[in-house]
Amino acid sequence: MMFQKEIQLQTKPRGFHLITDEILNALDISNVNVGMLNIFLKHTSASLSINENVEPEVRKDLENLMNELCDDKPYYQHTYEGNDDMPAHAKSSLLGVSLNIPISNGKLNLGTWQGIYLNEHRNYGGSRKIVLTVMT
Amino acid sequence: MMFQKEIQLQTKPRGFHLITDEILNALDISNVNVGMLNIFLKHTSASLSINENVEPEVRKDLENLMNELCDDKPYYQHTYEGNDDMPAHAKSSLLGVSLNIPISNGKLNLGTWQGIYLNEHRNYGGSRKIVLTVMT
Amino acid sequence: MMFQKEIQLQTKPRGFHLITDEILNALDISNVNVGMLNIFLKHTSASLSINENVEPEVRKDLENLMNELCDDKPYYQHTYEGNDDMPAHAKSSLLGVSLNIPISNGKLNLGTWQGIYLNEHRNYGGSRKIVLTVMT
Repeated sequence: MMFQKEIQLQTKPRGFHLITDEILNALDISNVNVGMLNIFLKHTSASLSINENVEPEVRKDLENLMNELCDDKPYYQHTYEGNDDMPAHAKSSLLGVSLNIPISNGKLNLGTWQGIYLNEHRNYGGSRKIVLTVMT
Repeated sequence: MMFQKEIQLQTKPRGFHLITDEILNALDISNVNVGMLNIFLKHTSASLSINENVEPEVRKDLENLMNELCDDKPYYQHTYEGNDDMPAHAKSSLLGVSLNIPISNGKLNLGTWQGIYLNEHRNYGGSRKIVLTVMT
Repeated sequence: MMFQKEIQLQTKPRGFHLITDEILNALDISNVNVGMLNIFLKHTSASLSINENVEPEVRKDLENLMNELCDDKPYYQHTYEGNDDMPAHAKSSLLGVSLNIPISNGKLNLGTWQGIYLNEHRNYGGSRKIVLTVMT
């Protein structure tokens, strides 16, 4: 048994953002005893991660690290959409666009310090669409 | 309900390659209203990603970036299979070998610009095996 | 149909470690003809990968590469938990914490050279919890 829902996230500035609550507010999994949630981002210049759910410095440090690893490469040829575009594609593949999180006893079975991140890699990425699929 | 199919991809040169059509030609999901496709690559020196489905420059830039990040490290000890081998293992873990894509109304629910990539990290990787699993 | 089990891995030193046997010893999938295993790590400073299952040099090279890419960045602000902490968060998102592996004929359908890795990114990470979910 599966149910599926497509939602649009609120527009976010470039950077790493906690979206655990936005996801949970869109879903009712209180009746799912054992299951799996897939979160799928329908874009190629943003990404999804699971990481630390308290300290904003972690999210700033991730932004700076990914910029150091991926921005401003002299060999980039895909440059006509702006200098934030090709790095955004690279970050999207390094971090991924599809997450699977177990559901146990009506809740996401995340660790104490885990939260769900939307990583916005464009300067002006607009609203991002995700597909939520609950498998039971 | 699940069905599963193992296929072999056509041999590809080193680089990033769109394989959306190769995957779709191997599958009939037209009757799947709500589901999930898992694509699993049975290798440790290639990888799978979802990224931009039009511009070949994006795929060239990804190849060059991954080479800059992972190739020719003086500390590599696993070198006897050639200087493309250890970097291939690293790229494989950074990009991943298992993708989950939602199925909605008989189609992969990809975003407009999303395609499925096989990333061949060896100079001569040969034909690559993948397992397709459709969960409904 | 799904079943789920939470286990604790043996404490491991910093580095990349094969855990295929630890996972298989915790699971009975001999009756699963077609299925999917999800392995979910409930932590933000370690990660899971699939990679080469024989050569220890591969695991050492991965440790050194991830250290080069992520350690000792002058711009890191999240530093009060030690200089191994923020790099551990970064490695965790680059490598991921959730793996899906197909099950076929009662076995994990891994390639010949594939093994499951727990990547311990802290100097003293302690015992790590994972959730195993089998979907059939």
